[in-house]
Amino acid sequence: MSTLPNSLKNISLFLERLPGIGEKTANRLTFFLLNLSEEDLKEFAENVATLKSKTKLCENCFNFTEKEICEICDNDERDHSIICVVETVLDLLSFEQGKIYNGVYHVLHGKIDPLNRVGPDDIKIGELIKRIKNQITDDGLRIKEIILATNPDMEGEATAVYIKNKLKTITDNELRITRLAYGLPMGANLEYADYMTLKKAIEGRNKF
Amino acid sequence: MSTLPNSLKNISLFLERLPGIGEKTANRLTFFLLNLSEEDLKEFAENVATLKSKTKLCENCFNFTEKEICEICDNDERDHSIICVVETVLDLLSFEQGKIYNGVYHVLHGKIDPLNRVGPDDIKIGELIKRIKNQITDDGLRIKEIILATNPDMEGEATAVYIKNKLKTITDNELRITRLAYGLPMGANLEYADYMTLKKAIEGRNKF
Repeated sequence: MSTLPNSLKNISLFLERLPGIGEKTANRLTFFLLNLSEEDLKEFAENVATLKSKTKLCENCFNFTEKEICEICDNDERDHSIICVVETVLDLLSFEQGKIYNGVYHVLHGKIDPLNRVGPDDIKIGELIKRIKNQITDDGLRIKEIILATNPDMEGEATAVYIKNKLKTITDNELRITRLAYGLPMGANLEYADYMTLKKAIEGRNKF
Repeated sequence: MSTLPNSLKNISLFLERLPGIGEKTANRLTFFLLNLSEEDLKEFAENVATLKSKTKLCENCFNFTEKEICEICDNDERDHSIICVVETVLDLLSFEQGKIYNGVYHVLHGKIDPLNRVGPDDIKIGELIKRIKNQITDDGLRIKEIILATNPDMEGEATAVYIKNKLKTITDNELRITRLAYGLPMGANLEYADYMTLKKAIEGRNKF
C-alpha cells in the first residue's frame, strides 16, 4: 500500500472497513472508481455525505425511510392485519423482491444474542408489543396474524420463542402466531442436505 | 428495491455498478455505511469527490501519483536500470506488497486484446519504447533489463511478444529481456494442477 498516493489510499482504506472487502478488492474497487465520470463520483459523494441525515426509521415498523412512515406502512393496498417480524431490513427486502407477501412488517434490527450481549430490550421487541397493544380495540384485535420470520438459527429461534410468549400474555390467544416453514430448499439435493434440515423436512411432511 | 428510500437506493445502485458487487451485496454495504459515523462518511465523500482531480499518472512509469513523478520513480534507492513491465497498477502493488523487487516499473494500463479492440497503440507501449530510447546514451544503454511481467494468458503473452520484438529493433540486443518463471504455485497440489502449468513446470525444471 505504501506506493499508492493518498488520494487513492484513503478511499481504499475506507472500503477495506466494509464487510467482505479485503485489501485487494478495496484496491480494485478504488481503481474502478477512477474510471467513472467526475459527475457520477460527485453525485455518489453527495449521497454518502447526506446518507445519515436523510435516512430515518419508520415510526411504525422501523423499516428505513426518508419520511416518518415508510412506503409499505403508508400503502393502503397492503394487508395491515398481518405483520411479518424480521431481524433486518435486508430480510424485508428479500420478501419484497419476490413479491410473495402483501402484509406489513416489523423490523427488530437484531436478534436476542446473549453471547454478544444483545438482550430483548436492545432490539425493537418492546415496540412490537406496544404496536400490537395499540390495535386492541373494543371490537377485539385488529391484527389477525404475526409471522415470526426470524432466521432458523439458535438466536433467531430464541427470539421467536421470546416474542411468542410475550404476545400470548397480551392477546389472550386470539392472535394467530406463525413461523416460516422449514424444509429442503427448492432445487436442493438430498445427498448434500444437512441432517437438521432433513429432520425438519420429515417432521413437516405434507400429504401429496 | 422499490421499498428502499432514495437516500439508500441511490448509494446501493451506485455500488452495484462496481465489479463483483451484486444487488444483495450493494444493499448490505449501504446498510453498513449507515452504521458508520457522520464524520467518516463525510471524509470518504470528500475523498471520492476529489479522487479524479487529485490522481494523476506518473509521467515516467504511469503508476498512480498525486505529483508528476510517482514515489517509486522518485526513489533513488531503487535500481532504475531494471524495468518491470506490468499490465495494471494492481499488478505493481502485488510486487510491492511482497517487497521482492527493487527495480522500477512501467504500467501498460492494459494488454493487447484484439477481441476487445485493444491494439498496441491503446496501451502505454509507445511510451515504454520512448522511455528506453531516451536512456540510450553515447556510453550505451543505461537500462540493463526489462522484465515482461504481463499475465500468463493469451493476451498477456501476445503483449509480451509484441514488446520484445519492438525492443529488439531499437536496442541491438544489448538489452536483457526476461519473462517471469512459470510453474507450480507454492503450496500447490500436483493432483489439481492444470496440464499447461505442469507442462511449463517440466519444461522449466531446474537442477536440484
